[in-house]
Amino acid sequence: MIVTCIYVTVKPDAIQEFTKATVENHRESVREPGNLRFDIIQLSDDPTRFMIYEAYVSESDVSVHKTTAHYLKWRDTVAEMMAEPRKGVRYNIVEPSERSKW
Amino acid sequence: MIVTCIYVTVKPDAIQEFTKATVENHRESVREPGNLRFDIIQLSDDPTRFMIYEAYVSESDVSVHKTTAHYLKWRDTVAEMMAEPRKGVRYNIVEPSERSKW
Repeated sequence: MIVTCIYVTVKPDAIQEFTKATVENHRESVREPGNLRFDIIQLSDDPTRFMIYEAYVSESDVSVHKTTAHYLKWRDTVAEMMAEPRKGVRYNIVEPSERSKW
Repeated sequence: MIVTCIYVTVKPDAIQEFTKATVENHRESVREPGNLRFDIIQLSDDPTRFMIYEAYVSESDVSVHKTTAHYLKWRDTVAEMMAEPRKGVRYNIVEPSERSKW
């Protein structure tokens, strides 16, 4: 199991549109068989900064996600909304170590 | 609902001890009534860097966590293991917006 934290800073006038596009991506992504979580969180003291907390069963599930129509639509829709390039940080999971807890 | 991401960098010789103490804290924390998640993840390309992804129902549940015996034990146990002060980053939750999805 793998977690990728995607850090995104959007332009101030793009907060609403970015949220809408990312919620749509969330709704489809959580239906992928290999997806464990797809949380969207927003910095409490700076609404232009988001983190997407993506957990997948395997590397191949991460790869499959990047070929889905909803991911590709999101990627293209939000490209112009970003104030700087988004950053993905890859983590191994220590706990919960049981898949059923995800 | 609130997420706090706790970023911790430990001394290289403290990785195992830090993991053990934090797994113990995880096991007790997920039993708190107001806890939604308490994930421990470790940077794929640097095992000294951890993130704890804590989700709670409310501010008061976050406050209660900080008074528990398991949190206080963890805080004191790991204090000397850190290579630099830990950093907590507070987020609001966009999705999942339903509590049952946490």
